[in-house]
Amino acid sequence: MCGGSVASEVYLCFIAYQASYTGSSSDEDEQSPREKSQKTSKGSTDFCVKNISQAAFGRREIEIAEQEMPGIIALRKRAMDDKPLKGAKIVGCTHINAQTAVLIETLVELGATVRWSACNIFSTQNEVAAALAEAGHPVFAWRGESEEDFWWCIDKCINAENWQPNMILDDGGDATHLMLKKYPAMFKMIKGICEESVTGVHRLYQLSKAGKLTVPAMNVNDSVTKTMFDNLYSCRESIIDSLKRATDVMFGGKQVVVCGYGEVGKGCCQALKGLGCTVYVTEIDPVCALQGCMDGFRVVKLSEVIRQVDILVTATGNKNVVTRDHMDKMKNGAIVCNMGHSNTEIDVNSLRTPDLTWEKVRSQVDHILWPDGKRIILLAEGRLVNLSCSSVPSFVVSITSCTQALALIELFNAPAGRYKSDVYLLPKKMDEYVASLHLPTFDAHLTELSDEQAKYMGLNKAGPFKPNYYRY
Amino acid sequence: MCGGSVASEVYLCFIAYQASYTGSSSDEDEQSPREKSQKTSKGSTDFCVKNISQAAFGRREIEIAEQEMPGIIALRKRAMDDKPLKGAKIVGCTHINAQTAVLIETLVELGATVRWSACNIFSTQNEVAAALAEAGHPVFAWRGESEEDFWWCIDKCINAENWQPNMILDDGGDATHLMLKKYPAMFKMIKGICEESVTGVHRLYQLSKAGKLTVPAMNVNDSVTKTMFDNLYSCRESIIDSLKRATDVMFGGKQVVVCGYGEVGKGCCQALKGLGCTVYVTEIDPVCALQGCMDGFRVVKLSEVIRQVDILVTATGNKNVVTRDHMDKMKNGAIVCNMGHSNTEIDVNSLRTPDLTWEKVRSQVDHILWPDGKRIILLAEGRLVNLSCSSVPSFVVSITSCTQALALIELFNAPAGRYKSDVYLLPKKMDEYVASLHLPTFDAHLTELSDEQAKYMGLNKAGPFKPNYYRY
Amino acid sequence: MCGGSVASEVYLCFIAYQASYTGSSSDEDEQSPREKSQKTSKGSTDFCVKNISQAAFGRREIEIAEQEMPGIIALRKRAMDDKPLKGAKIVGCTHINAQTAVLIETLVELGATVRWSACNIFSTQNEVAAALAEAGHPVFAWRGESEEDFWWCIDKCINAENWQPNMILDDGGDATHLMLKKYPAMFKMIKGICEESVTGVHRLYQLSKAGKLTVPAMNVNDSVTKTMFDNLYSCRESIIDSLKRATDVMFGGKQVVVCGYGEVGKGCCQALKGLGCTVYVTEIDPVCALQGCMDGFRVVKLSEVIRQVDILVTATGNKNVVTRDHMDKMKNGAIVCNMGHSNTEIDVNSLRTPDLTWEKVRSQVDHILWPDGKRIILLAEGRLVNLSCSSVPSFVVSITSCTQALALIELFNAPAGRYKSDVYLLPKKMDEYVASLHLPTFDAHLTELSDEQAKYMGLNKAGPFKPNYYRY
Amino acid sequence: MCGGSVASEVYLCFIAYQASYTGSSSDEDEQSPREKSQKTSKGSTDFCVKNISQAAFGRREIEIAEQEMPGIIALRKRAMDDKPLKGAKIVGCTHINAQTAVLIETLVELGATVRWSACNIFSTQNEVAAALAEAGHPVFAWRGESEEDFWWCIDKCINAENWQPNMILDDGGDATHLMLKKYPAMFKMIKGICEESVTGVHRLYQLSKAGKLTVPAMNVNDSVTKTMFDNLYSCRESIIDSLKRATDVMFGGKQVVVCGYGEVGKGCCQALKGLGCTVYVTEIDPVCALQGCMDGFRVVKLSEVIRQVDILVTATGNKNVVTRDHMDKMKNGAIVCNMGHSNTEIDVNSLRTPDLTWEKVRSQVDHILWPDGKRIILLAEGRLVNLSCSSVPSFVVSITSCTQALALIELFNAPAGRYKSDVYLLPKKMDEYVASLHLPTFDAHLTELSDEQAKYMGLNKAGPFKPNYYRY
Repeated sequence: MCGGSVASEVYLCFIAYQASYTGSSSDEDEQSPREKSQKTSKGSTDFCVKNISQAAFGRREIEIAEQEMPGIIALRKRAMDDKPLKGAKIVGCTHINAQTAVLIETLVELGATVRWSACNIFSTQNEVAAALAEAGHPVFAWRGESEEDFWWCIDKCINAENWQPNMILDDGGDATHLMLKKYPAMFKMIKGICEESVTGVHRLYQLSKAGKLTVPAMNVNDSVTKTMFDNLYSCRESIIDSLKRATDVMFGGKQVVVCGYGEVGKGCCQALKGLGCTVYVTEIDPVCALQGCMDGFRVVKLSEVIRQVDILVTATGNKNVVTRDHMDKMKNGAIVCNMGHSNTEIDVNSLRTPDLTWEKVRSQVDHILWPDGKRIILLAEGRLVNLSCSSVPSFVVSITSCTQALALIELFNAPAGRYKSDVYLLPKKMDEYVASLHLPTFDAHLTELSDEQAKYMGLNKAGPFKPNYYRY
Repeated sequence: MCGGSVASEVYLCFIAYQASYTGSSSDEDEQSPREKSQKTSKGSTDFCVKNISQAAFGRREIEIAEQEMPGIIALRKRAMDDKPLKGAKIVGCTHINAQTAVLIETLVELGATVRWSACNIFSTQNEVAAALAEAGHPVFAWRGESEEDFWWCIDKCINAENWQPNMILDDGGDATHLMLKKYPAMFKMIKGICEESVTGVHRLYQLSKAGKLTVPAMNVNDSVTKTMFDNLYSCRESIIDSLKRATDVMFGGKQVVVCGYGEVGKGCCQALKGLGCTVYVTEIDPVCALQGCMDGFRVVKLSEVIRQVDILVTATGNKNVVTRDHMDKMKNGAIVCNMGHSNTEIDVNSLRTPDLTWEKVRSQVDHILWPDGKRIILLAEGRLVNLSCSSVPSFVVSITSCTQALALIELFNAPAGRYKSDVYLLPKKMDEYVASLHLPTFDAHLTELSDEQAKYMGLNKAGPFKPNYYRY
Repeated sequence: MCGGSVASEVYLCFIAYQASYTGSSSDEDEQSPREKSQKTSKGSTDFCVKNISQAAFGRREIEIAEQEMPGIIALRKRAMDDKPLKGAKIVGCTHINAQTAVLIETLVELGATVRWSACNIFSTQNEVAAALAEAGHPVFAWRGESEEDFWWCIDKCINAENWQPNMILDDGGDATHLMLKKYPAMFKMIKGICEESVTGVHRLYQLSKAGKLTVPAMNVNDSVTKTMFDNLYSCRESIIDSLKRATDVMFGGKQVVVCGYGEVGKGCCQALKGLGCTVYVTEIDPVCALQGCMDGFRVVKLSEVIRQVDILVTATGNKNVVTRDHMDKMKNGAIVCNMGHSNTEIDVNSLRTPDLTWEKVRSQVDHILWPDGKRIILLAEGRLVNLSCSSVPSFVVSITSCTQALALIELFNAPAGRYKSDVYLLPKKMDEYVASLHLPTFDAHLTELSDEQAKYMGLNKAGPFKPNYYRY
Repeated sequence: MCGGSVASEVYLCFIAYQASYTGSSSDEDEQSPREKSQKTSKGSTDFCVKNISQAAFGRREIEIAEQEMPGIIALRKRAMDDKPLKGAKIVGCTHINAQTAVLIETLVELGATVRWSACNIFSTQNEVAAALAEAGHPVFAWRGESEEDFWWCIDKCINAENWQPNMILDDGGDATHLMLKKYPAMFKMIKGICEESVTGVHRLYQLSKAGKLTVPAMNVNDSVTKTMFDNLYSCRESIIDSLKRATDVMFGGKQVVVCGYGEVGKGCCQALKGLGCTVYVTEIDPVCALQGCMDGFRVVKLSEVIRQVDILVTATGNKNVVTRDHMDKMKNGAIVCNMGHSNTEIDVNSLRTPDLTWEKVRSQVDHILWPDGKRIILLAEGRLVNLSCSSVPSFVVSITSCTQALALIELFNAPAGRYKSDVYLLPKKMDEYVASLHLPTFDAHLTELSDEQAKYMGLNKAGPFKPNYYRY
């Protein structure tokens, strides 16, 4: 979700994880964890966390998260006897929180041994890290790591005694790159890499192009089921939630323009329409524009409606979609926010001029005042409002975690030759399996093909059920 | 909104006003306002608030509220020259916050003189009260009044030197009753009462039945436009907002049962369906049940679906709609909350037994644990979740305020004989006027009847446009 | 539905009943039924229909209609033993078709004796009339009556040997007025009148005002449940159906303006929005306009959008809402139709000028050609498109029939003094009963109040459940 | 749309084209067109149609179709000067009706010469064929061809004097196969084939696998924009339209099960939900099942709801999805219909047993009576109800026609080597172009990328805008 270690997203992720974080003790202890001498109750010292004594509290957080992540727990139960990851030695580098802890412990239950570090210096839930360490998993992470701590932690996961890892689970590509640069021999022994972030995937494709990728890698970021939930279903709810929490705006009767009618834009439009907004759409792609028309939205250029809209939402992945010129024309009290990929969509810098006054009215909410008294409400300074002003539902994380676990299982168990040293999308059958793990949550019952029907359709009864180009 | 001074709602209102209250200084000053000697900058001492020096901050709150209450501001502008309340001397007793301050100052701009107290011991925004006092309005109110303070404040508004009030604006009926009991002669000089709460209206009808109501009273609680916004439009948004803020639940695919398909229930169902829930409805009234069917909801008895629903919402106004027996059958992780009139709908007391464990996980959210580990999530201990976990949009308050102001204008200016000593609903024309004041917010343009069309329809071009029994 | 005997609606009703009429034999027999000598199989001659030998075919039509009218059949079963109409002697004057036949035979099963004529010279289904006659009910009606035949038939129902009617079931007021004028003594013996049409109700209110109404009358036209189905629920479907059947238009992406946001307009807007149209609304009433805003529609003056809309629908009940000037501005290929009360909404006469060419492209569809080649598609020449180009679902008729039957039962059984010589709305309890009769169709299950709950709410467990002013 | 020349679809297409066919003269002339001697007004005899004298009437039909096909007309205008098909010699074999005539004449205006036959013995609109012939296009087609006539007509298009075709536009693959078998030398000169039907595409892939495809072929059947309209947008409207026209059913409150949640199923579900149905979904694919959940539908096995549903719709593409056993359990009055790919989904043959009685109540509507009196309403005998009981909107045909024309242009103008002897999907840029041609209909305005934005996104400003795997 948070998209790796890119600088511009750090604060963002920090905020996001803060929001879903309740009951943390204050971090007033200023001693570096690296200087502390800590032990688990069983005597292990192979870890480095803020405070091992917080383990019980972290365990409770993990238990609550388990209840909200039905898919990954179902996977754990189904595969526990098979131990499909028996022999897997995984270097993990992800956010460390209650939800990823559920993933980590699932991997272990499926047979893997792991060493884990954080992909982000701010996002670690210290209690959870403590609970993982107490449970015997070598974890090296705490909130507020320095840059140097950050790389030291990853190094501790790669380079340890009696430890030759064979899998990498990465979120941003930092573990992958450290191993490749510093331990090239070790890297050659890796059976597969599973990468979750946009950034990390981008780096893998670059490695591949440059001929430097010597192991198979799985791009789980673009998996079908995961993508649907990350974009369409998640944003359909978080646009409403974010705007409400930040501004208490009433939606009924409001005019909204959504820039971009991709999956995120579609989710936003559907939710806003459902609550009585009049929604306009802008698009550069004629196919998406036609979809917007058929879904009942007026497709316009931003300049056509900018003077009349009450709310402006960007979801394009592009830059400078909303300019100072646009915002000069907006009406008093209008809200501007971004649901897209990065903080470039709204030209926020153009608002930092002497003639405009910024008033921070609450966390993530600035009022920008024009000389004539006009007030524009800018959310999260143009960063992703759904991460800044809302939280990612555990269910969405469960989908992602299952996808990661299955990617590891696939890469680890694939017969020689199935995957070469390239970047792959998750096989459709695995994508379908992720979905099937989450159906019981909805008490949904799949129909099974009869032999006769399977033959008629030319399908295997266990799937995959669709050609690769199927668009869902 | 908060429905007067009934004990069971006090805490509720406190919470609600807390939620929308930002930036208040800490109230650590323990000296009673009644013991303090304070003066406005112009030297007036005819007021009693927490701290007159907070006036500037309160003024800013009022100014922001003005921006979000377009209707009452439009009314102020349109009627400012006419001064339709010139000569009106109003005893006011309502919540005192930025939004009611806009109403109070509007009444003054329309020609009235006022004296104002709070209808609730917890709900006063001290800064706003200070700002009103500083502006020269005699206000007697602070947060955390004692019972004795409460009545003292109201008394100060009724009984003052050179003051014979002729109008009452009441929210709960306390000012009305104090004057009636203690100052019966003064009460006889009153031209009209405007009452906003369910409770206060109920008390007026009882007075009327008992033959003790000697002045005309306007029941603004049941005005058409106000009711639509208070119930349907407001709850359509607040059900989503409350559930998200309290639980971060993902709506897509969830099964929900809404008990009661009145205006509140209709709003809840529409919003939840719009976000991908499967919604069931329970009803006692066959007409509403049939509406539920035609709107696409399965109408069931609660027992039919109680085992399968993820979320249960009550909106009946009735008591014990959800019993311990129901909750015993609900599934692990299910959410229970109330959007109805009072805290009686869910039999919360039945959950206070030794076999169940309550865990408060955050403000307004309790987990109730069954012996077998089942966990039910109870919101706001069964009180109104939309007031407890969300906030009332200023736009809705603007509708209510306009309705109150117009009721006062109507009663004050009505020719002798139009109103007798009884309880009246707001004339339809006034209801239409409230609506028309809010149309510019939506850039909505009314069509005007031509003379020929008005004649054809048998209507006055200025309205009212519908017979009294019209159901909208 | 068809609204009585007003001239302008005659052709309309004719069309409507034509549309739902299948398999009729050709009416080539030119001899007047009045000149024919016919007998039922049991030897009765007390009837006058087109052709008694068509009875078997009519009986089959009635049987099919019974399957589609669950409510009236349920009423028949529930009340069959009680015979609540025992002793009732009813003069009926309504449309005569399979659906009204189900009503007529229900009244008889509940104990009434009846004599029946048609309220419209074109709408009689001859086979059904034959089946009713064959079953022993004195029916006087055929399709294509002359004006003189029309009154003769009604007269035969009022004035017969050994027949003193005590109830009237009227649709348009013609039976009522004939009896009042011609048989005033007989009229005084009437216990009650049940009137179904707008026109008939209007005539009753005029009689009442003039002091000439000497018996109680029930206005069933404005009953709550009936009105919902006639307007909101029926039109929500028939706007789609009518436009599709007449024009094969694709709705997705179309811009539509709906004039009038009453119940009919609300139904149209909801359906069109649901299929991907962008919908604009015009309104004269600020309350309805505000509803339009909150439901997500732009409220505009017609002139603002007339140049851009693809479809224009009127639903105002007013006249000249769409003028020649408007239509001059519409774009090529635009569709114009009326869902309102009468054919006055679109100024169709203004299109009958020499410069415009009318092309009838199919039944109910005219293309109007402007000199520059522009083509406007006018449906049903401005008459009600849902009656002209679609059909009224049996379920809606079932609601109306139940309402009529219950009105008769109430008037016939009411204790002396409950009803005076005035026009009444159906008691709410009866309205609720109509609704309850139709719930089993949807497998909907009502919740019953416990004694404790009923007491808490101050309600009778059997209803009525709402105050009279409740707006649903 | 009609999917080629497969026997089982012939009657179907016949019906479909009948439905949209108005004003045809009776075809009582029994002389075979092949025996007639006919001439155009300019003296040409190179054609064979039913009756050349009907040309004027056919021309009018074509002109009306042009108005409803904005995209193809826009293409005609934009490319008219370029003549991108100059030199193309096209053998066409498609349905021949007003809409395909617009395509044919567009190809000619873009520079092509053509010879055209029908892909179906029943679907030719004789007047339109006459109009095409009169305009100088060699057309060989009439309604009611014999099998032998059918192949004779195609042969006349392939094998003519001074005629070496270089392109084939096929719908079902018959022209392709005749040329391949009978004129293999000629086939080798072909530059490209454009195939529109499922069947024809399937045959091409088989040829390709068998190594017999010696020319490039374009599969336009699976083009993105076309598929969206053929399936999702078209079916969203036609399910409603078909059910209404066939049964006059009221949708509000009905329970419906839709088998299959692919594009067709999604369209059906969305429309039915929008009109107040409760919709259940069955699925075999967990990804689609999860989509169903998130869109608010209960995903069930058919057996779970079969006893309670009022309407059953199949949209799976599979066989025997609904069996006799299912239908034995359905309730009285339930409706069964098919929106899927073929007539195999409902096991209609299982209903042809002596214990069941079939009653044809109107065209395309059979009542099947069970011994106990239960009545199931079967539409179109299980064939595609949207083609049988509704019609394909011209707008959808416009999308398809544009796709075909652009496929021909692409194949004809592609530089050597771009396409090999294989089956290709339309390039995304062309798909986007089809969409862009239809945006003006909706008055939709695309946003253009700035140079800076295009660079940031790594896109060409003219598209394509998405990677090939993009799922829209």
